[in-house]
Amino acid sequence: MKRILILVFAIATAVCVIASMPFTAGRADDEPSPIFGVKIPAQYRQWEMVGVSHEAGNLDELPGILGNALAIKAFRDGTLPFPDGATIAKLAWKHVPSVGDDAALGSMQAFVPGTATTVQIMVKDSKKYAATGGWGFADFMGEKPGDTALHETCFPCHTPAKDRDYVFTRYAR
Amino acid sequence: MKRILILVFAIATAVCVIASMPFTAGRADDEPSPIFGVKIPAQYRQWEMVGVSHEAGNLDELPGILGNALAIKAFRDGTLPFPDGATIAKLAWKHVPSVGDDAALGSMQAFVPGTATTVQIMVKDSKKYAATGGWGFADFMGEKPGDTALHETCFPCHTPAKDRDYVFTRYAR
Repeated sequence: MKRILILVFAIATAVCVIASMPFTAGRADDEPSPIFGVKIPAQYRQWEMVGVSHEAGNLDELPGILGNALAIKAFRDGTLPFPDGATIAKLAWKHVPSVGDDAALGSMQAFVPGTATTVQIMVKDSKKYAATGGWGFADFMGEKPGDTALHETCFPCHTPAKDRDYVFTRYAR
Repeated sequence: MKRILILVFAIATAVCVIASMPFTAGRADDEPSPIFGVKIPAQYRQWEMVGVSHEAGNLDELPGILGNALAIKAFRDGTLPFPDGATIAKLAWKHVPSVGDDAALGSMQAFVPGTATTVQIMVKDSKKYAATGGWGFADFMGEKPGDTALHETCFPCHTPAKDRDYVFTRYAR
């Protein structure tokens, strides 16, 4: 009976893993970011949504912010600091008018994601990244990380959000 | 052996269901929409992100669009029409400036989700909703659906997107 139970749970686990497999391949083999050595996480596009934003001005972007299971749980529960392993991904696209939506709405007012611009990653590892608030950063354009100079700006830019563990995004409810 | 296999898969299914249970409760017991009888799907907030948008003008909203597994697969594969059971949720928030982000960026340019405004649902059932392109609609403010007059506008408004099975949103890649 014990052997059967072990078999049952082994198969159950396998079924769960298969059931949760994503439709698209990850990009975990890509080049890591300088300084931090952070890669684009596999299957990050399948993560749950934390929130959305709109960066006007020079950036002119429409980002969606996603989190892995650890990050999402911490966001929902209001847990600070985020636990080690929590990972947040900001996917940004150009903020472009939608001709189709506007025709339906009868006015110029709808903006949608245009060309993909950057994928920015924050990975929590309180020991490895102790010098930068416990976060490792990566800023990718396409599948290529930005240079060292760019990555030197990540942590200083995030310091105004120190009281929220250096995370600007809030969970959209 | 056959009985054991049935047991194995029954337990596997149960384990999967438990493993995929969300952190927050759904709102499946809420009042359904008029005309279509569509309720807010349980756990829709845990669905994957299809894309984001920005409705300027009078709406002044920042929506995030999510889809259940059937919808996400159809979006990714470019399958049209969407299969029965595909469900899309548009969660909209007011488009508000982020004081914290702007302080960090040194200029007024970041907008984030403010107060939640509407949750709009499209459920595909080609037989039940044959008269409206196979889609049942619901437009909720908080947990309360809008009135009949509002829901009479859903399908006509979506007809310009007929060649994409009445769905305006495209999958953001």
